[in-house]
Amino acid sequence: MKLSNRITGINAGGSDGWETYVLACEMEEAGKEITHLTIGEHDIRTDPLILEAMYNAALDGHTGYTALGNGSVGLRVRIAERVEKTTGIPTSPDNVFVVPGGQAGLFATHMGCCDPGDRAMFIDPYYATYPGTIRSVSAEPVPVPARPERIFQPDPADLEAAAAAAGGVSSLLINSPNNPTGVLYSRETMEGIARFCQEQDIWLISDEVYETQVWTGAHLSPRMLPGMQERTLVVGSMSKSHAMTGSRIGWVIGPQEVLERLDDLATNTTYGVAGFVQEAAAFALGLGESFEEKIAEPFRRRRGIVMRLVEGQNHVRAIPADGAMYVMLDIRATGLSGEDFANGLLRTHHVAVMPGESFGRAAAGHIRVALTVADDRLEEAVRQLLAYAGDLSARRTD
Amino acid sequence: MKLSNRITGINAGGSDGWETYVLACEMEEAGKEITHLTIGEHDIRTDPLILEAMYNAALDGHTGYTALGNGSVGLRVRIAERVEKTTGIPTSPDNVFVVPGGQAGLFATHMGCCDPGDRAMFIDPYYATYPGTIRSVSAEPVPVPARPERIFQPDPADLEAAAAAAGGVSSLLINSPNNPTGVLYSRETMEGIARFCQEQDIWLISDEVYETQVWTGAHLSPRMLPGMQERTLVVGSMSKSHAMTGSRIGWVIGPQEVLERLDDLATNTTYGVAGFVQEAAAFALGLGESFEEKIAEPFRRRRGIVMRLVEGQNHVRAIPADGAMYVMLDIRATGLSGEDFANGLLRTHHVAVMPGESFGRAAAGHIRVALTVADDRLEEAVRQLLAYAGDLSARRTD
Repeated sequence: MKLSNRITGINAGGSDGWETYVLACEMEEAGKEITHLTIGEHDIRTDPLILEAMYNAALDGHTGYTALGNGSVGLRVRIAERVEKTTGIPTSPDNVFVVPGGQAGLFATHMGCCDPGDRAMFIDPYYATYPGTIRSVSAEPVPVPARPERIFQPDPADLEAAAAAAGGVSSLLINSPNNPTGVLYSRETMEGIARFCQEQDIWLISDEVYETQVWTGAHLSPRMLPGMQERTLVVGSMSKSHAMTGSRIGWVIGPQEVLERLDDLATNTTYGVAGFVQEAAAFALGLGESFEEKIAEPFRRRRGIVMRLVEGQNHVRAIPADGAMYVMLDIRATGLSGEDFANGLLRTHHVAVMPGESFGRAAAGHIRVALTVADDRLEEAVRQLLAYAGDLSARRTD
Repeated sequence: MKLSNRITGINAGGSDGWETYVLACEMEEAGKEITHLTIGEHDIRTDPLILEAMYNAALDGHTGYTALGNGSVGLRVRIAERVEKTTGIPTSPDNVFVVPGGQAGLFATHMGCCDPGDRAMFIDPYYATYPGTIRSVSAEPVPVPARPERIFQPDPADLEAAAAAAGGVSSLLINSPNNPTGVLYSRETMEGIARFCQEQDIWLISDEVYETQVWTGAHLSPRMLPGMQERTLVVGSMSKSHAMTGSRIGWVIGPQEVLERLDDLATNTTYGVAGFVQEAAAFALGLGESFEEKIAEPFRRRRGIVMRLVEGQNHVRAIPADGAMYVMLDIRATGLSGEDFANGLLRTHHVAVMPGESFGRAAAGHIRVALTVADDRLEEAVRQLLAYAGDLSARRTD
């Protein structure tokens, strides 16, 4: 007997992009002190008030099978209200489907949009799981480059060219505020994407898990654009907005008739989301915008620290981070690839960052700096990073 | 744009088997008092000690992303020890993969064993999600009848005939102790299944979520049979054994090289299982066998109540329940289908049971009685059920 080609092919026999991170963890285990600017996870834990709400819900009996369907009504009401408030688009609890985390939402939406053999587009640079998610549903990943010279804003002409080369596609996956670039898609970009999806008559899957972390400009959900409500599936999550990464809870927003089919899938995959986690999420959403701003604030502050440090030198260029928990740095002037730079920085200064190549070809020659350590430690690490880049540049011009 | 054929086809355009249950819930909402002998869920809640352990784990910081991979080492050690103790088969933590519930385990194992278009076998009668799980992975469900005249023990000749008719299969899914029949597969049955899997060179997926609920005989995991370790994937769960249905936690036991691929899938589907839930499960397993026996005891007792009541009449015949939380009753002497009997019983006596047809063709003319209400209420309901059957039989012979 043999394993399915689907499952053995998820990583396409290649790298999963986490080599530098794994090396950093191994050095840590060997006793080295490493500054991790790698994973997109808060340096704070889930708020004890939320944990208390979860415990009380469990004691109150939310420990049995949940009614299947979209999720608990109480939670869906809160999510729908929040979406309607932030987007202005009428959103009922029937437009909300609760999933065990944003990744589960990405998987479920692609299961719903793609049949085996279909082509599914996504923007490169991309969050590490995108191609694997598409391969997991037996579809073929079609990356579309967002170019550094356009500050990583996708070009509709590139979308059209990629779709034509692929011989037609079923869906497009986008992510704004963007991981890894920190870029927020402009209205012009979003309108171009919307036009493309309508012309091609395809689904748009919009990963908006960083929506509460916006530093410049305003987040525009493509579901807000004319004609896009019926073809947009928005993936949201409590992970980044409420520091609940480990609770595994998120949602999909979309047309009711689509969500009814996601329910069929959930019956056969997740069998619902723990009731006590849903209750905790409803409580957390009830803490309102000020709580979400409190969670986002350290990243806003640290983004400023990194941007200021980078402005003070000329070996490394920063992509202006509009949002999310990262700053992407262009290190091409050092002559190194992102991978070589990241590995060199790790070995010489014990600072771990993610190579741009981990997020696709379009981010080659870049590194992603996660803003996930205390301010002073971040400042020290970025100073080391810039010194390392300066040394490389100096050696290069020798 | 259209939804995938995969997702619109999960229920094969037909019944999902829950119509009687839904009707019962609607009658309940309309104010009727219904005795629910439908869902396989304990009438007790998750033990407060387990919930306290979960809360303490969350307060201790188990609220972030878990290391991906198979699950937390502490939990996997406990599961491996338990499996090794109950089966005698050497089992290391590397043979354990933690999943968010038994259903997630069924889905992941089929994703690993079947490519789109493959045929996947399962035994009819079956737990309601089996065909939908197989369709969810874009494979074709191949049911194999287990016949009432063999007391629902599958016949290797039927397995061979079904595999030949299907033109080859990739996997076989079995479930012992069995839902819905309550039957425990005999050593002879298991040896026949093992021989079949080896001859066909296919995977065996063994759903053993009722392993702690055995009343007569002894549970034999097919992984214990010669030559079966390398081709058996056992799906286990804390749901039934520890009354933790809502916590969504279970596992897959199998060869390490298979579980490494399940990890690739998890990265793109679940992104791990909440750390605080894993800690709670490890704590619960640490409560030992006596706790599991305490959880199982009411079902053993109630199984006795139902069997004794049925022995006192001759309109309904009971399938001798060896295990699980159900007794299956043969109501063919009433002249009704299981569906008509269940709907009639619900409307006339407000007692809800599951029609055998909800679990496949082989269970037609049967009903499944879940042992999930207090003893006196169960006794009263079964007396009503038997009286209803007696009336039907009397009218039939009039």
